Amino acid sequence: MRAASATMRAVAAVALAHSAAPAAAQRSDGYDLWLRYDPLPPAERASYRLLLRSAFFAGDSGSMQAAREELQRGVGAMVGAAPIAVASLGNADLIVGTPAALPALKSLGLPLNAAGPEGFVLRRIAWKGRDVIVVAGNSDVGVLRGIFALLRRIQTGQPLESLNVVEAPRYALRLLNHWDNLDRTVERGYAGQSLWDWHKLPGWVDPRYTDYARANASVGINGAVLNNVNASAEILTPPYLEKVAAIAGVLRPWGVRTYLSARFTAPIAIGGLKTADPLDPQVQRWWRSKADSIYRLIPDFGGFLIKANSEGQPGPQDYGRSHADGANMIADALAPHGGTVMWRAFIYSPEEVDRARSAYDEFKPLDGKFRSNVILQVKNGPIDFQPREPFHPLFGQMPATRVGMEVQITKEYLGFATHLAFLGALWEEVLDSRTATPRARVAGEISALAGVANIGTDRNWTGSHFDQANWYAFGRLAWNPTLRSSDIAQEWSRMTWGNDRQVTETVVPMMLRSRDAVVDYMTPLGLTHLMATGHHYGPGPWVDDLERRDWNPTYYHRATRDGIGFDRTAGGSNAVSQYAGAVQHCWSSLECVPDRYLLWFHHVPWTKRLRSGRTLWADMVKRYDDGVSAVREMRRDWASLNGRIDAERYREVTAFLKIQEQEAKWWRDASIAYFQSINGLPLPPGHAPPEHALEHYKSLRFPYAPGN
Amino acid sequence: MRAASATMRAVAAVALAHSAAPAAAQRSDGYDLWLRYDPLPPAERASYRLLLRSAFFAGDSGSMQAAREELQRGVGAMVGAAPIAVASLGNADLIVGTPAALPALKSLGLPLNAAGPEGFVLRRIAWKGRDVIVVAGNSDVGVLRGIFALLRRIQTGQPLESLNVVEAPRYALRLLNHWDNLDRTVERGYAGQSLWDWHKLPGWVDPRYTDYARANASVGINGAVLNNVNASAEILTPPYLEKVAAIAGVLRPWGVRTYLSARFTAPIAIGGLKTADPLDPQVQRWWRSKADSIYRLIPDFGGFLIKANSEGQPGPQDYGRSHADGANMIADALAPHGGTVMWRAFIYSPEEVDRARSAYDEFKPLDGKFRSNVILQVKNGPIDFQPREPFHPLFGQMPATRVGMEVQITKEYLGFATHLAFLGALWEEVLDSRTATPRARVAGEISALAGVANIGTDRNWTGSHFDQANWYAFGRLAWNPTLRSSDIAQEWSRMTWGNDRQVTETVVPMMLRSRDAVVDYMTPLGLTHLMATGHHYGPGPWVDDLERRDWNPTYYHRATRDGIGFDRTAGGSNAVSQYAGAVQHCWSSLECVPDRYLLWFHHVPWTKRLRSGRTLWADMVKRYDDGVSAVREMRRDWASLNGRIDAERYREVTAFLKIQEQEAKWWRDASIAYFQSINGLPLPPGHAPPEHALEHYKSLRFPYAPGN
Repeated sequence: MRAASATMRAVAAVALAHSAAPAAAQRSDGYDLWLRYDPLPPAERASYRLLLRSAFFAGDSGSMQAAREELQRGVGAMVGAAPIAVASLGNADLIVGTPAALPALKSLGLPLNAAGPEGFVLRRIAWKGRDVIVVAGNSDVGVLRGIFALLRRIQTGQPLESLNVVEAPRYALRLLNHWDNLDRTVERGYAGQSLWDWHKLPGWVDPRYTDYARANASVGINGAVLNNVNASAEILTPPYLEKVAAIAGVLRPWGVRTYLSARFTAPIAIGGLKTADPLDPQVQRWWRSKADSIYRLIPDFGGFLIKANSEGQPGPQDYGRSHADGANMIADALAPHGGTVMWRAFIYSPEEVDRARSAYDEFKPLDGKFRSNVILQVKNGPIDFQPREPFHPLFGQMPATRVGMEVQITKEYLGFATHLAFLGALWEEVLDSRTATPRARVAGEISALAGVANIGTDRNWTGSHFDQANWYAFGRLAWNPTLRSSDIAQEWSRMTWGNDRQVTETVVPMMLRSRDAVVDYMTPLGLTHLMATGHHYGPGPWVDDLERRDWNPTYYHRATRDGIGFDRTAGGSNAVSQYAGAVQHCWSSLECVPDRYLLWFHHVPWTKRLRSGRTLWADMVKRYDDGVSAVREMRRDWASLNGRIDAERYREVTAFLKIQEQEAKWWRDASIAYFQSINGLPLPPGHAPPEHALEHYKSLRFPYAPGN
Repeated sequence: MRAASATMRAVAAVALAHSAAPAAAQRSDGYDLWLRYDPLPPAERASYRLLLRSAFFAGDSGSMQAAREELQRGVGAMVGAAPIAVASLGNADLIVGTPAALPALKSLGLPLNAAGPEGFVLRRIAWKGRDVIVVAGNSDVGVLRGIFALLRRIQTGQPLESLNVVEAPRYALRLLNHWDNLDRTVERGYAGQSLWDWHKLPGWVDPRYTDYARANASVGINGAVLNNVNASAEILTPPYLEKVAAIAGVLRPWGVRTYLSARFTAPIAIGGLKTADPLDPQVQRWWRSKADSIYRLIPDFGGFLIKANSEGQPGPQDYGRSHADGANMIADALAPHGGTVMWRAFIYSPEEVDRARSAYDEFKPLDGKFRSNVILQVKNGPIDFQPREPFHPLFGQMPATRVGMEVQITKEYLGFATHLAFLGALWEEVLDSRTATPRARVAGEISALAGVANIGTDRNWTGSHFDQANWYAFGRLAWNPTLRSSDIAQEWSRMTWGNDRQVTETVVPMMLRSRDAVVDYMTPLGLTHLMATGHHYGPGPWVDDLERRDWNPTYYHRATRDGIGFDRTAGGSNAVSQYAGAVQHCWSSLECVPDRYLLWFHHVPWTKRLRSGRTLWADMVKRYDDGVSAVREMRRDWASLNGRIDAERYREVTAFLKIQEQEAKWWRDASIAYFQSINGLPLPPGHAPPEHALEHYKSLRFPYAPGN
């Protein structure tokens, strides 16, 4: 043990120091994501190499093969020599497996119970007198996740000295939702086409699917809904199910189960029935038979995600049935196979007093009426993936229902791919929100996390290098919602941009302030949904002529000559009453409500003094300017890294930040010009007038903006 | 000179021998196209290195910088040491420039006159007692093309011993036509999205545009029409023209000029006019002003491609004017700037007796009526990019008009991206076709070649590795239409798959037979346009219910119980009369017409004996089977290369060939089943019956087939 301890100390010493060598020489197009495995500095390399010369893998399942190959790939690239897979325990530095495959693990007192079916244990131990690292789990997929966790520690320069980790995921379902259409367009996609090359499947299975699965496995994402919630029934026909099965076969060893979005009227569209009424026995039979045939092809099929009676999609209400009737009927078809229905709560009708109230009003009375294999999938906020919303009032108020949270990783409302906005901060804010009691948090009220994917065929997967961080952060938070977004940003930055201290210390603060910057230049102080129509690209606060009242930005901001904001107190829509006691009490009150939700819940005179001492109007203008300034500072900070990261990624981020600054200014100028046209107030001193007259901003058209 | 001669002999010796080392170890995703610059075997490397130690570049224009970087990149990668750019002629192994920049070149007696404005001279000479290679041209772009020609020689292992080359392009316009829409979909595109990321332009100029330009420059393509002929007028608005200008700036140094497709009614759509009548002075003024503003942004703008009065597009006939009126009006707007109008001849009306007659009937009377800066752009055949058509009768019959030929590089009718079909053979067949006199050939009757691009965002650019060959062959034939497709295939194979003799000797024959295989399994013996509706994926010979008569496959094959084929002789539509004397005479006659055009020109009894001695029906069935067999043999041949090329590309081609075989059999089975249902004839002995009944084939639907 003495020699090993010396090694350990050496590794610890170099690991704690930031690596000094910038990775500037290394070319990169972003394809490798955070799994770059850049070579470590020589001193670290030598130390790790001693610890990782050989490995014993118990078993040869697809997941174990994946674990072995990933370990060899990662350590080989970072350390310069891959662990040799050995046939006996006796000469292995790493021991990798499950107690089922390697009964000797049982005697080591590893906390495998705490790892659950999906987690892992990493521990440095003495094994028959030798100093070894054990990567153990209760399943081969758990072991694979342990390998990724070990590699992450090496990538981020953490010591392996007293390695003693046990992890299990907080939520059993951690799913990406792809809004991918069968023609390969992606709704709200800003990263190229759909990954899924349906036309060539199953004959051609793109190797990229494997890299997609690896990336998911590395952060613990364990399911993928392959197709858009605005679903074509075609996906459930036999030719498409064969294609789905081919993808499922690639994802399976990586611990990622395959799900599909199902169209509620599929029994009519492809089943030849005349109805999709959930109480009709023929319909029930059709879904059972469909589920049976899917499970014959895909034994680990996860289940269906369903958008029903929402934005024109069909649903059980078309037949006079409730959402519970619809969800339960399909859940019953999946139950014999262990499948789950994710039923979306995203509904709102044009007749409603307040769109923010709709889902609660509809679903709260159904609490306790859903089958145990139904998850009610609720968006993080009551409207629609805005830069900032208060948490959805259904969280914490459906005690007899399994509730999942849906967040949007793709940035439909946060500047598409060119705006840097780290969403870890947004999701942390929501997960940490206090619900009913002082100790209750949203994170504790949910049992699943789903993220609308930002992934496409772009070489860098997500349309921009920084948007990779949102995929990463989603996975990490779904695994462990108590992680801090600052820690996640740090991890991601080191894995993605290297361990150069100056890079990390520049990139992480940029990320952490980025989302607030977007809020400030788009929708400060609780404003919401002011984006242009349809594509949501750029500002459109003046839009007032859409078919549905609750699609108009004017519906949301309610600006008049005297004030602005949506009165959701008892004097208004009373949506605030949907929240529990203390929260409701605070947000109802102008004195208590945080500035960030002010105009969400209150209609406030322009001249009202805020906590800042400024009038509402002056504060709002200042925030627009702060948002633009923050982006200008991000540009400056990023420029300081020139030469410290590869030129290819450096240039792309530089160009995108310049676009972001231009568009932030556009948002600021157009918003100020518009609100001035309503309130007739002069600009507060020290703030520049908008560059153009309001009519200019109103005249801009973007008929081909992406994602629409 | 003696030392140099020894070197020359050494290089020649190794260059003539095929390299033995397979490139199997090298990973590749196809991004590098034919510009892979794989390392040469050590012996060759050493010899070339002596010849290419240093280079003098006369000038520093964008094109000369591109030439220098390409030479250094290519030689560096292949030979292991890049030529050092030196400041003086006296110590350079390579001398690179124009006589304008380097007057000393004038005294060398180089045949620069023969190189013209775009070509080049490569010559090994003695320069002040030293043995040097000269790469010269009359323009920097010509020099750049010379560098690519030199690199190609090294890539394909040709000796530089008695280098003495002068080349000039046969056609002044060698253009890619991108059918790319502003929403990034690509009409008839099977390789991902449009390269042009309009939304992010001009703020983000993707480095991929440079690699696109490099690839074009390497084969001499000198223009690109960026957008679809079914054009949105939006492309001509100021915001889009700024985006276009950003692309043009990337393409310019590589000798690729930018063109746009223009919508004939743009003056109405974006100009606020009430008419697009070409004789209206306001309309004329609008186009002149639009042209002026484009040239202010893009001084080398090439001109407009226009699809008018065709398939629903607007045009001059909407105002009672002729195609010449329309083309000339826009040509007059471009003329002051040296721009060109490419006016498409692809028109056909539902009332016509025979769609194959339409373009000739419409345009022949207009001969001599077009401005000198108008090119009438005629598809290679009279119908629409079919696997095989006779050449278009307008070729050779518009003596007073500049005529260009349009071919389709993307494989709309030849199996999309998964079918291996080398189109060099198709285009060679057309270019070589005899027109009016025994010595006249189509190649001599045209003055421009345009190819509908097969390029998209797919990592390998063209959707498959072998489709890269079609981009390459198009460029090579547009530069020199007398090249043999077999030589082009050999060049491309060596550059793309390496110089391993077994690879070349396997790949080239596969390519050369591939197009005939497609003809055989889809539309043998002069049949045409039997593809399924809309997307053209798979067989649809039974389709008879489309809005326009001339969109139905039954319109084209005219099969009855007694016979099959379209009678285009004097007894039928008499389209054959549009061809000149000898050609018309032969094709009119059942005895003379080649089998490949038999059913194009004649309605023939099923029982008629062909040259093969078989009945028409027996011959047709045999050809379907031959087509399937040819693909099966391609699969077998390709499998013999396992281990001789990188695994990544090997696997993809393997999967695609399997798909091709399945689809070839589908074509064969569906066609035979259908024609049997018409003629009631038994299968000839020795041929297997179709796998399924006709109804099965008719029931297949592909609502999401790409490119539609």
